[in-house]
Amino acid sequence: MRIPIKDVTPEIGHARIAGWVHEERDLGGLTFLLVRDRTGILQVTIPKKKVTPEVLAAVKEATRESVIECEGVVKATEKAPGGRELVPDMLRVVSRAETPLPLDVSEKVPAELDTRLDNRYLDLRKPRINAIFQIRNACLRAISEYLWDNGFTQVQTPKIVAAATEGGTELFPLAYFDKEAFLNQSPQLYKQMLMSAGFDRVFEIGAIFRAEEHNTVRHLNEATSIDIEMSFANEEDAMHVLENVVASAYQYVADHCGDALATLGITDFKVPTVPFPRITYKEAIEISTAGGEPLVFGDDLSTAAERIVGEKMGTMYFITEWPTSTRPFYTMPFEDRPEVCRAFDMMHPRMELTSGAQRCHIHSLLVEQIKAKGLNPDAFEFYLNPFRYGMPPHAGWGLGAERLVMTMLDLQNIREAVLFPRDRHRVSP
Amino acid sequence: MRIPIKDVTPEIGHARIAGWVHEERDLGGLTFLLVRDRTGILQVTIPKKKVTPEVLAAVKEATRESVIECEGVVKATEKAPGGRELVPDMLRVVSRAETPLPLDVSEKVPAELDTRLDNRYLDLRKPRINAIFQIRNACLRAISEYLWDNGFTQVQTPKIVAAATEGGTELFPLAYFDKEAFLNQSPQLYKQMLMSAGFDRVFEIGAIFRAEEHNTVRHLNEATSIDIEMSFANEEDAMHVLENVVASAYQYVADHCGDALATLGITDFKVPTVPFPRITYKEAIEISTAGGEPLVFGDDLSTAAERIVGEKMGTMYFITEWPTSTRPFYTMPFEDRPEVCRAFDMMHPRMELTSGAQRCHIHSLLVEQIKAKGLNPDAFEFYLNPFRYGMPPHAGWGLGAERLVMTMLDLQNIREAVLFPRDRHRVSP
Repeated sequence: MRIPIKDVTPEIGHARIAGWVHEERDLGGLTFLLVRDRTGILQVTIPKKKVTPEVLAAVKEATRESVIECEGVVKATEKAPGGRELVPDMLRVVSRAETPLPLDVSEKVPAELDTRLDNRYLDLRKPRINAIFQIRNACLRAISEYLWDNGFTQVQTPKIVAAATEGGTELFPLAYFDKEAFLNQSPQLYKQMLMSAGFDRVFEIGAIFRAEEHNTVRHLNEATSIDIEMSFANEEDAMHVLENVVASAYQYVADHCGDALATLGITDFKVPTVPFPRITYKEAIEISTAGGEPLVFGDDLSTAAERIVGEKMGTMYFITEWPTSTRPFYTMPFEDRPEVCRAFDMMHPRMELTSGAQRCHIHSLLVEQIKAKGLNPDAFEFYLNPFRYGMPPHAGWGLGAERLVMTMLDLQNIREAVLFPRDRHRVSP
Repeated sequence: MRIPIKDVTPEIGHARIAGWVHEERDLGGLTFLLVRDRTGILQVTIPKKKVTPEVLAAVKEATRESVIECEGVVKATEKAPGGRELVPDMLRVVSRAETPLPLDVSEKVPAELDTRLDNRYLDLRKPRINAIFQIRNACLRAISEYLWDNGFTQVQTPKIVAAATEGGTELFPLAYFDKEAFLNQSPQLYKQMLMSAGFDRVFEIGAIFRAEEHNTVRHLNEATSIDIEMSFANEEDAMHVLENVVASAYQYVADHCGDALATLGITDFKVPTVPFPRITYKEAIEISTAGGEPLVFGDDLSTAAERIVGEKMGTMYFITEWPTSTRPFYTMPFEDRPEVCRAFDMMHPRMELTSGAQRCHIHSLLVEQIKAKGLNPDAFEFYLNPFRYGMPPHAGWGLGAERLVMTMLDLQNIREAVLFPRDRHRVSP
């Protein structure tokens, strides 16, 4: 049976492996194949005079990036990666790669991101790129398990919906038989309805869709959102869950992804300490203004402001007590000063990762707030009804999986954190 | 701090709870409120002469399905559900329900499914309905953890795509900026590309979309699919993972969802034994024909045939060795008898749960098979390229989460297994 390349050691004596031809070197009497699987790279050494004609013929056929299988004796050698090599008594080409390759997997030739994404199946073979997705998987595993262990029920809410979550124009329209429909921007309205339905604590990890026209290094038109909502909870409760979710993802990566971090060249991986510091929106705009980006109450935080405040904070942090005018209609204002609301953003020093809040659970106030945003409450009837028949106070947040991975690994473009990104110009592969 | 109702016992002395007013009975000097949260039901007993005027006023305001909070002494009593009651020294209405309710949560008045789905936030409050989604969550948790523990990487592939997975017409078209796009029917092509990308073993739990016109009790237009793909594997390897995934879901439910099963009235919950029996397609059509539903080689299994064979098998089982003509282009035929292919269905006695196969990993054969289905290989270039540059043999399957839950709990309509179903006529709530 085939074993993972990382398990090939001189001690096991004999091994059967399968993988891709990463590199090939012909030194006359000796040929070296570096064979790669997702766990590592192994040197296969072919002494031409000592192997069978079948092995020799197969080696000749094995172009770079071909899939091969081989079996043989494992020997210790200081000259090969991992301190061992395999000398094959069987070697066969399972799937031959055509030449030339559309993209260089060994990364000796740099490539533009667009070329890489056009040939993503080759790009993803690079150990450095594959490591990103091992870490993304680890983050989602850690987060799922943290939430399950803390009483959250995983749910799947519809992606095809009849109404816009925030009444925005950034929606992809859809022909749903004879009806008009849209792709959902966020599970927001549905997870709130589940609070009325008595689910108490829910989470969803699913696709969200935003028809934003702008094409930046931190926006996607299809993304994966990690959403929670919890009942009988305020914004502090939601922030407490959030900082622990994020810290648990970092901790899991620190504990389980040492190889992937090393492949990415990350040597100073730090798990953030909880609780994350909290500053108010008012403090944030003061820091920004003092730092040369003047902001007044009611302004959104600009990218420059995020950078100035992030540098000052130097760690993950929360911004609380936002102006009500800057937040969606479903946010709960403070009772004694309704111009400020129970919303928060969780920030990485580089950028915003999460928006959350205690939600408005009072039907009459919610209707008012929908109107105040210039929207028509009639369009939200399906969402408003649950508030008329017993809705607990609740709070929640949405965390972008891609932004979490992008900031964790210091990636420069959010597309690096998605297998097959969708942007203004790309819908394939 | 509020505690879950299931944790309220006479031993704890004093408790604070929150939940919905499930029922209310006024016996003159005594009022009983049955209060429900997702963990159970508690009798709150109000001796009118002994409680404060504030409590009395709140009880008067507390219509059925209102959200209330209360706190008080817990006493043992044989007459109340769970053998205990709470006598409140504090009780307040958090969110009052209007009257009359659009749907009866206590299930004394039966309702049509359509009415129930229109008022899903109330319908989901029924303990019996909520139990379905606790079990669905448990299944997905068990399956995720089984796959993670067995070396599968969780992935998210795009839902917005430029090409149809199987070239079918059952696609929802989408305006993607200035391009034509579709909602993906299945992650099939993407998970195969990830095999070429060296991911070795992947799984995805995500939304799939099918624009099927027919409206039946076992079809949805948006569903949750559990998909795996594994490299250097054949159909037997994929079947082995599948039967263990399904058995692990049943086992987890048996171990962790006793209360939910009891709420559903399921007393004979059986974990299926692995391995599941295997019969060939040829055997299946013989059984069907003998049972009064005549089928010939090349026919699909009709609903009647599924029932006849299912009754005979009496357990989960596999049907293997399907006619190549009945399966999609990406299926691997047997080399020595290409009219039969390495495909399988996993069947519950009631219906098909899963389709899977060893896939065709040979570029030239795949192009032929695409043409044989009357499709144009040019439309699949993004998918075919990975097969030209090193594609390992691979196999996989897709399991519908809703069908798994529907058959596990013997639900009569697949809509019962989805929070907010989408069908031919329903896109809201």
